[in-house]
Amino acid sequence: MTSTAARTLQVVLFEGFELLDVFGPLEILGSLGPELRLELVAASASVVTSFQGPRVAVDATFASAGEAAWLLVPGGFGTRPAVDDPQLIGWLRERAAAAELVMTVCTGTALLARTGLLDGHRATTNKRAFKWVAQQSERVEWVREARWVRDRRFATSSGVSAGIDMALAIVAEFFGEERAEALRVNIEYDGHRDPGWDPFARLHGLVP
Amino acid sequence: MTSTAARTLQVVLFEGFELLDVFGPLEILGSLGPELRLELVAASASVVTSFQGPRVAVDATFASAGEAAWLLVPGGFGTRPAVDDPQLIGWLRERAAAAELVMTVCTGTALLARTGLLDGHRATTNKRAFKWVAQQSERVEWVREARWVRDRRFATSSGVSAGIDMALAIVAEFFGEERAEALRVNIEYDGHRDPGWDPFARLHGLVP
Repeated sequence: MTSTAARTLQVVLFEGFELLDVFGPLEILGSLGPELRLELVAASASVVTSFQGPRVAVDATFASAGEAAWLLVPGGFGTRPAVDDPQLIGWLRERAAAAELVMTVCTGTALLARTGLLDGHRATTNKRAFKWVAQQSERVEWVREARWVRDRRFATSSGVSAGIDMALAIVAEFFGEERAEALRVNIEYDGHRDPGWDPFARLHGLVP
Repeated sequence: MTSTAARTLQVVLFEGFELLDVFGPLEILGSLGPELRLELVAASASVVTSFQGPRVAVDATFASAGEAAWLLVPGGFGTRPAVDDPQLIGWLRERAAAAELVMTVCTGTALLARTGLLDGHRATTNKRAFKWVAQQSERVEWVREARWVRDRRFATSSGVSAGIDMALAIVAEFFGEERAEALRVNIEYDGHRDPGWDPFARLHGLVP
């Protein structure tokens, strides 16, 4: 797949996903036009309920979804049971192993860590849930202070709102900084462009 | 209705609504727990498609929805036809007239302006679409430079991401600054706490 070909971004949904973990990045990535097609994927349900309550329609199931170049894995309280869901982790392992890019937001990193694919990579996650996420695999090089971390095929972000900043960084990397800046202005956002910005690591006692 | 009673927040959906206009504020307001019940409302469809593509399940139709203390009106390209939709504008006029609080995000302000209820009030909107929105009613006191504007029963915000900052300001006003700060930390967000912050007004030539 070349960098100019149209891609599909599959978003992995599960009961209790965090609303902004999905729709922050999709506000950005869903505004790229035909270059990135969005597909919301879940185990089987036609509708998945977020932690905050709103229900989202599923485009394809694990069984029916084709392969996609990009994956997005949100977090939320729903990740607590989901890390022990062999169907979800198995599907994610198979698809993430073949993907060009896998993005996680917040505790979505716990799900990717459980696949084993993050082992030997640098990664970050929500700072309040950091210890629980890090327990999902000791072989990941966990970064305690970061807004997001980019390492080879993986982009992992800190809590919830950090997914928006990570998505803009991904647009800059794959489509150019001008495109990212145009999307930033479109949503009247400034956000954080420094992946090292992270006052929440100190707030939660992860760094001195 | 007292400030401690549980409230319902109705979100008005229409085809082509902007994803983050809805789910930015709902990430905040949907995390308040039983004190604020969310209800997604649309003309009739069981599912409404956002401008970015994801489809959201509707909880109630204009006909079936009860009265709600709070309303949220998103923007997006879908507002262009929606300002001329008598069913939507009529429903919004009736319900907004009786509401304790009506919030708009981005070009959602155009829909509220069309009801006539904003006349004589200060209000703002997306800065790139400012002129089109202001044309929807000349009797509104349009504020050209603002992240959000709070005037009596109305809270109107600038483009897309500004809805998150407005929602946090509303939480601070109705539930206290500590509650707002806790929600900010939960989503690892800093955002803008100054309603006058608005570099986009200058960028789009609305102020010198």
